[in-house]
Amino acid sequence: MTFTEYMREKKQQIDMHLSTLLHTDIPQFSTLYKAMNYSLMAGGKRIRPILLLATIEALGKDSAPYLELACALECVHSYSLIHDDLPAMDNDELRRGKPTNHVVFGEGTAILAGDGLLTYAFELMARQPIAPEKLAPCIAVFAHAAGPAGMVGGQAFDLESEGNLHIGKRGLELLHQSKTGVIFKAAIDLAALLADANETEKQMLDAYAVNMGLTFQITDDILDVIGDEAVIGKPVGSDEKNDKATYVTIFSLEEARRMAKEAAQQAIDAIAPLGEQAWFLRDLVSYMLVRTK
Amino acid sequence: MTFTEYMREKKQQIDMHLSTLLHTDIPQFSTLYKAMNYSLMAGGKRIRPILLLATIEALGKDSAPYLELACALECVHSYSLIHDDLPAMDNDELRRGKPTNHVVFGEGTAILAGDGLLTYAFELMARQPIAPEKLAPCIAVFAHAAGPAGMVGGQAFDLESEGNLHIGKRGLELLHQSKTGVIFKAAIDLAALLADANETEKQMLDAYAVNMGLTFQITDDILDVIGDEAVIGKPVGSDEKNDKATYVTIFSLEEARRMAKEAAQQAIDAIAPLGEQAWFLRDLVSYMLVRTK
Repeated sequence: MTFTEYMREKKQQIDMHLSTLLHTDIPQFSTLYKAMNYSLMAGGKRIRPILLLATIEALGKDSAPYLELACALECVHSYSLIHDDLPAMDNDELRRGKPTNHVVFGEGTAILAGDGLLTYAFELMARQPIAPEKLAPCIAVFAHAAGPAGMVGGQAFDLESEGNLHIGKRGLELLHQSKTGVIFKAAIDLAALLADANETEKQMLDAYAVNMGLTFQITDDILDVIGDEAVIGKPVGSDEKNDKATYVTIFSLEEARRMAKEAAQQAIDAIAPLGEQAWFLRDLVSYMLVRTK
Repeated sequence: MTFTEYMREKKQQIDMHLSTLLHTDIPQFSTLYKAMNYSLMAGGKRIRPILLLATIEALGKDSAPYLELACALECVHSYSLIHDDLPAMDNDELRRGKPTNHVVFGEGTAILAGDGLLTYAFELMARQPIAPEKLAPCIAVFAHAAGPAGMVGGQAFDLESEGNLHIGKRGLELLHQSKTGVIFKAAIDLAALLADANETEKQMLDAYAVNMGLTFQITDDILDVIGDEAVIGKPVGSDEKNDKATYVTIFSLEEARRMAKEAAQQAIDAIAPLGEQAWFLRDLVSYMLVRTK
């Protein structure tokens, strides 16, 4: 199976399952459910759930029993995008080529759609028919990563540092580790927990997670400068417009490209001992380096 | 111990424990943590966590091991107030006599403070040293109650029905059951789960929960009309100002009072068989009927 086939197949499974999750019989709640599904089904790449499933396979285990758990990660990702796009945050009106949630449903409903997706994700996780002694730690690890010490903290820092190009390399690393890296790492941590990874495997995957997240983020910053608006589905140059510190604004386009390549190589090297069954994790990093959206 | 003494003692334990929870060593996250603690420590009555602990005691069990789990309920309550007060929602500038979160920290940070408290609550729950086969169902039950099928759904319906006095008695019941009743019920459900309640006890507690929630909500609506602004800490008459359907606007002040009394009596009757060890649950309903804030 090629990388593209694997991505397509997994994305299809995830999309299909996501579409079955959020329904209500209460007419008074139907706008909320429409708003949640609008963003959830807006056609993301589903990288976080795919990463969870692929890591389980890289550890030699069957990922099929964890499809729904993986979907919970996408619900949280979807909530974070809805809230990030709000006027009080990044104030974005376009996401994946479509009007953002608050543009369609209004700010109040968009806030609630985010709240709903986040809370629902934990219900979904807690309902999984997984050994409860593994399930509770999975929820704790994921909530920690998504919470104030992780993703929410990163978003708060981002909000505060907007218009401040002087947060430096360390500030930028903290920002990206907490905004996106932490969730990639959590997806991998969950997979390690569920697939009973040993200590050596955990260490490899840790190193992979950090460098893979970095590759993703630097590429994201690069795409904001050189990307094709029609392809990435949101306005290009929005970071510069918002005076955001990025790998491109703090370093340079050339240096950012060099850093992305270096991180990608380190990620690939880290999991070399896992051999052929980790092929997708390796290809994923290479894909991040060349992705156009 | 009197009702007031019990309330004071439990509130003190909860306040003390809540104050130890949210700290960060990361300077870039400190504003977020300040914002979360600002609302969390703003001096609520802590009814939800107290209800959880008191129900465990009403079932003859020791509630001490569940103090931290109870605190998670208060984190979720606190998040819901922060988001409810936002300009895009109820647009309230005063809560418990203090400026609301977004007035102090700005809208973006307030949204994130709510997100942070909500996510943290699930981390806190999942970390509890409780038998994992009980913990996962507790998380599922609570997330369901707090999520789009419960509290978030109720808030969305509330947002949509603002300015519409014609939602009727059934709409009003749905609104209140989902906005507040559902969380009271979840606190009681969790207690039943943790204290191994039998089927008969569960049925009694179900009936208690519904009628207790109703008593609370009708009294809340009454207080919005006749309350003392200095005592309740927020402007009186805001429901009328916002054209909100309430038990007072849909029925009348007198009829609302009669309904509250009737619900309170049904709640008290429901748990009569639990005997003396359920004294606090009974007194709590009587207190709700006469509370002034």
